[in-house]
Amino acid sequence: MKRVLINELIENEESKISGFASKIRDTKYMIFVILKDRTGSIQVSLDKGTQEDLCKELDGVLSGSVIEFTGKMVKSEYVKQGGKEFLPTEVNVISKAEASPLEENANIDTRLNYRWIDLRTDKNQLMLNVQSTFVEGMREHCYKEGFTEIHSPKLIGAASESGSSVFEVEYFDRKAYLAQSPQFYKQMALVSGLERVFEVAPCFRAENSNTNRHATEFTSFDIEMAYIDSFEDVMDFEEDLIIAGLTKVKEKYDEQIKDLFNTEVIIPTKPFPRIKLEDLYKEMEKRYGYQIPEYDVGDMNAEAEGLAYKYAMEVYGHEFIFITDFPKTKRAFYHMRKNDVPQGYDLIWRGTEITTGAQREHRYEVLKAQCEEKGLTKDVEFYLQFFKYGCPAHGGFAIGIDRFNMLLLNIPSVKEEMFIFRGPNRLEP
Amino acid sequence: MKRVLINELIENEESKISGFASKIRDTKYMIFVILKDRTGSIQVSLDKGTQEDLCKELDGVLSGSVIEFTGKMVKSEYVKQGGKEFLPTEVNVISKAEASPLEENANIDTRLNYRWIDLRTDKNQLMLNVQSTFVEGMREHCYKEGFTEIHSPKLIGAASESGSSVFEVEYFDRKAYLAQSPQFYKQMALVSGLERVFEVAPCFRAENSNTNRHATEFTSFDIEMAYIDSFEDVMDFEEDLIIAGLTKVKEKYDEQIKDLFNTEVIIPTKPFPRIKLEDLYKEMEKRYGYQIPEYDVGDMNAEAEGLAYKYAMEVYGHEFIFITDFPKTKRAFYHMRKNDVPQGYDLIWRGTEITTGAQREHRYEVLKAQCEEKGLTKDVEFYLQFFKYGCPAHGGFAIGIDRFNMLLLNIPSVKEEMFIFRGPNRLEP
Repeated sequence: MKRVLINELIENEESKISGFASKIRDTKYMIFVILKDRTGSIQVSLDKGTQEDLCKELDGVLSGSVIEFTGKMVKSEYVKQGGKEFLPTEVNVISKAEASPLEENANIDTRLNYRWIDLRTDKNQLMLNVQSTFVEGMREHCYKEGFTEIHSPKLIGAASESGSSVFEVEYFDRKAYLAQSPQFYKQMALVSGLERVFEVAPCFRAENSNTNRHATEFTSFDIEMAYIDSFEDVMDFEEDLIIAGLTKVKEKYDEQIKDLFNTEVIIPTKPFPRIKLEDLYKEMEKRYGYQIPEYDVGDMNAEAEGLAYKYAMEVYGHEFIFITDFPKTKRAFYHMRKNDVPQGYDLIWRGTEITTGAQREHRYEVLKAQCEEKGLTKDVEFYLQFFKYGCPAHGGFAIGIDRFNMLLLNIPSVKEEMFIFRGPNRLEP
Repeated sequence: MKRVLINELIENEESKISGFASKIRDTKYMIFVILKDRTGSIQVSLDKGTQEDLCKELDGVLSGSVIEFTGKMVKSEYVKQGGKEFLPTEVNVISKAEASPLEENANIDTRLNYRWIDLRTDKNQLMLNVQSTFVEGMREHCYKEGFTEIHSPKLIGAASESGSSVFEVEYFDRKAYLAQSPQFYKQMALVSGLERVFEVAPCFRAENSNTNRHATEFTSFDIEMAYIDSFEDVMDFEEDLIIAGLTKVKEKYDEQIKDLFNTEVIIPTKPFPRIKLEDLYKEMEKRYGYQIPEYDVGDMNAEAEGLAYKYAMEVYGHEFIFITDFPKTKRAFYHMRKNDVPQGYDLIWRGTEITTGAQREHRYEVLKAQCEEKGLTKDVEFYLQFFKYGCPAHGGFAIGIDRFNMLLLNIPSVKEEMFIFRGPNRLEP
């Protein structure tokens, strides 16, 4: 007999169901099992008087075990859980669980040690499915817009683009490094003739930092598109992409997110507000009496991000805000400049930076000069070669899907949001 | 003015086009540029007599350069390429290319050195798009069937599942390793309560082998599904998945694949033929006089894979064949066994193994014993823990998308098929 999903059970129809026993209650006359599959839960009721054999199968079976029941679903006014119960005629214990080592109010580190148990809650299941659906919505949008998916190498020969540290790999008789981002290779794809590419892949950062939003390995949704007129095109596309992802999530999980996370999926309106960094500084000072500290001038910090959000909500009633016109000293060498101003942006959502985007410099000579100015020429020599033989104007951005989902569901840290977190002190499970 | 794609040009309508100049021909009276974008090519014709200024813009501009033209498309009986040409009134050279260092008949290693130029051919562009579309089709099928996409860690704390070598990473004050596959983690996802998961992600193999089908880093489409009755369910699902991927490719690129790769996309019929290894050995001996060499007994080798294909075509007119009932000595410890026979399979397509799949052992005690039998207990201790607290019956498989696309398009090696190849001697570009 084929398994039937719990929310697809038909009253009084002989069926087989299976799932995790999330609770087993052994009373004087009855055994009650709350059985859970990916579609929902149901109470399975066994009568100790008339079903001695079946009840015996459940001897010593603890919650967490996987059980298969054959029988019938019936309506029952006594059952709180949806007003129905399952009356089995057969029991088959697929897998007997040991007592869970995870207490209900365990701290996050203990929970991560037993992540495969920790993830079984309705909340965490929803969290994983929301992330998957958000990415599905964004991918659909990319396909519709003529994008090609690429898979760029994570093992690279030179130690990369930015200041942040890279992991070193023993690669036969030499060293390799783990890519911090697909930046150079998604640009290479455009130089190769593809006009619009995306990649969803791991990025690696050897940073010994322990904030709520950093991990040494995380998944990035990367976009790069050619034949743009300016970085405004990049921002426009990012707006559409985020709207597509959020719309897909809202369609599928709106109610569940309200129930379990007590938060709402808000589809932002277009265009998202845009402000120059300098103007934002002024507004923050005027409105909130906040002055950016000397060592953060030209950049944002956590407090400023929070205020940028406050400002966007106050003035535009909008959760997102693009900040543009950062000074060149604070931006990567490959951002295109116009009148010496980098043609890029940060996107802040709910008080946290979720993206850096830009038009890239595609002219070899200019790029080389900007690279020399930052003292990087040697490490990126291979990258500079890409631009010698013709390259369209282009730009792009990346969204860390874990950080995004954390903000969407109001989860306190990426540790809790990621399927399996990796940090300086965590390589397990 | 917004850019118009070449195949969307409307006759006599003022438009802006841009792309790579794949050829520039300078004749006595005219300059002809073949301009190419992602939708096609068109001849751009400039008259030296009446358009001196425009022609001057093209002075010293070589093929490979990126150019933007404003003007009109007109029908022209003189032009071979589609019977139309573009008559520009403005020229804007976006990026001047140096002379290409890549000669037309360069060998594969030289081509890989300049991969970003090598990929510009129609054939290579199609190859990348076919791979993207194949994966798109498979993903769509997974979403439709209730799968969740996961992103499992590539940095792992213990040196992994199989005999093949792993890359070592300097991870702060300890060692980490690069995951050879998401095997353990996709199983963990099922233990965590997700019932059907997929992942598309890089795998790393520190094997110093130089065949046409191996790379040190490649992209795997991984599937794992719970609540199966046997590995037959896994094979059934793989059939549907491959059919979904190939159907998407055929819908979009059938004609182009015929034209450029001289091969046909064949949608296989269900079910794919299935044969036990021992029976296949007998058939190979009877039909082709082939006996598997002593050291390969219990397994396949390249010649046997070729003959399995021959057999499938001869008897079933089918390009795919599942081989089952391998001996346990030749299969991973986590394959479930029934009467001591591993409940798994290899799938051969066009003479090459493209997948290994199986039902997994989900019972902790049995799994532990099978693990000890292979002498692996220490390295996989963390993995064994997953099965102590309840686990559904489950199985899965993986498809290497590069190898698949290589076979689909009849490309001689994954070196040529991958966006950017990685091998023991190649970490660049």
